[in-house]
Amino acid sequence: MKATTEDTLGKSGTFQDKPAQFPTTQINGAPLKPITQVLLDRRATPHFKSNPVPQEYLEAILHFAGQAPSGFNLQPWRFVVVRDREARHRLQKAALNQSKVSEAPVVIIAFAVKDEWKMRMDAIFDEGVRRGANDAGIVEMQKASATKFLGSFPPAVWLNRHTMIALTTMMLVAEAYGLDTAPMEGFDADAVRREFSLPLESEVIALLAIGFGKGPDKAYGGRLVLNEFVSKEHYGGPWTGQ
Amino acid sequence: MKATTEDTLGKSGTFQDKPAQFPTTQINGAPLKPITQVLLDRRATPHFKSNPVPQEYLEAILHFAGQAPSGFNLQPWRFVVVRDREARHRLQKAALNQSKVSEAPVVIIAFAVKDEWKMRMDAIFDEGVRRGANDAGIVEMQKASATKFLGSFPPAVWLNRHTMIALTTMMLVAEAYGLDTAPMEGFDADAVRREFSLPLESEVIALLAIGFGKGPDKAYGGRLVLNEFVSKEHYGGPWTGQ
Repeated sequence: MKATTEDTLGKSGTFQDKPAQFPTTQINGAPLKPITQVLLDRRATPHFKSNPVPQEYLEAILHFAGQAPSGFNLQPWRFVVVRDREARHRLQKAALNQSKVSEAPVVIIAFAVKDEWKMRMDAIFDEGVRRGANDAGIVEMQKASATKFLGSFPPAVWLNRHTMIALTTMMLVAEAYGLDTAPMEGFDADAVRREFSLPLESEVIALLAIGFGKGPDKAYGGRLVLNEFVSKEHYGGPWTGQ
Repeated sequence: MKATTEDTLGKSGTFQDKPAQFPTTQINGAPLKPITQVLLDRRATPHFKSNPVPQEYLEAILHFAGQAPSGFNLQPWRFVVVRDREARHRLQKAALNQSKVSEAPVVIIAFAVKDEWKMRMDAIFDEGVRRGANDAGIVEMQKASATKFLGSFPPAVWLNRHTMIALTTMMLVAEAYGLDTAPMEGFDADAVRREFSLPLESEVIALLAIGFGKGPDKAYGGRLVLNEFVSKEHYGGPWTGQ
């Protein structure tokens, strides 16, 4: 992306439609994995082979991430795609020296820039009016309402909330295409900002390694039963399944 | 879920394996939608029919949400499933009076309880040791490391980050099963806590309505082109597709 400045926004070419072309099979030619199989197979991959992620797959993963929903359609997620070998080694150093960061052919830095939405809002709402998603008659009122709402949050909370929708989407699309992934939150945010020229006011949210797993996965650690995290009708109402 | 107390944890029945039984077709009998189609079709649904979500589908959606990855496998997401008609009307009042909240047959309140991970950690790490995911010899060191790491965050940031992985999973699984959804962040968190007996120290993160959409979707508002949210190798490095 370009460093965001007000005069690059709202020009032609800023917005696009839903993806029209994307791979419709796994990389090995097999049918896409159903999401149920994706969720059974997905593990935080400990090691990666060096095989690259085909360009058309990476593009599709990014395009689909961009289709995530967001409050007022403000799309606050930002990604730096790191593939250069030297850059992956620098990222590894900033990420607790985890070897998978330099092993994986693609590592995506997911971040968001505090208050950037204030610069984006006019262009996004105006595009909404052009497409019939916003009503020209009340769009100024909607902007005021959005500004008030967003001002009521600690910025980091709202940015994490939304960026993780796009990151999760990316992770699951990658897995459906037959790739392996590893989401990570162990890193020195200051070092990531410095090494990858992120704005000082950015919130570094997660890393996502994408590639082809090498060697065995870590053992599955189990999950809480539904009664431990789901209630019925009110907190503490036992989830009995009915 | 039961209100969490230390003596309910780590007992038999707290943990489970991956889901073994779940619906393998859409509700109407058609094959599951591939995730690419899910992401093209998914919209924030403005209105819902009253038709219920079949129990086995709702259970599967919740089970798959629970498979989401989390830091140290701590699984901080908590859900209240609201189906009772009167409860949905109370939730609507706490959620800017959005009519879809009482229209949808299921609305899930996604939240997390600050510092609850401190009570869960021993049971989760011990289960990890039983399953071979943690090494008994270093598990105390791992707990100390996790405690230090989690203490370095504003709790709301970490809880939003993780709960949104599970919420996004839930949304996409529901859509793959042929359901419609609407994620919402417009609500009065104090009112939601009060009306649904959530702990005072809980972070209310999002609502997710699930059901069958009624009437036309809102027009698609467009999305930023990749160059507006993706950089190559460093912030500002134009994403040229190569």
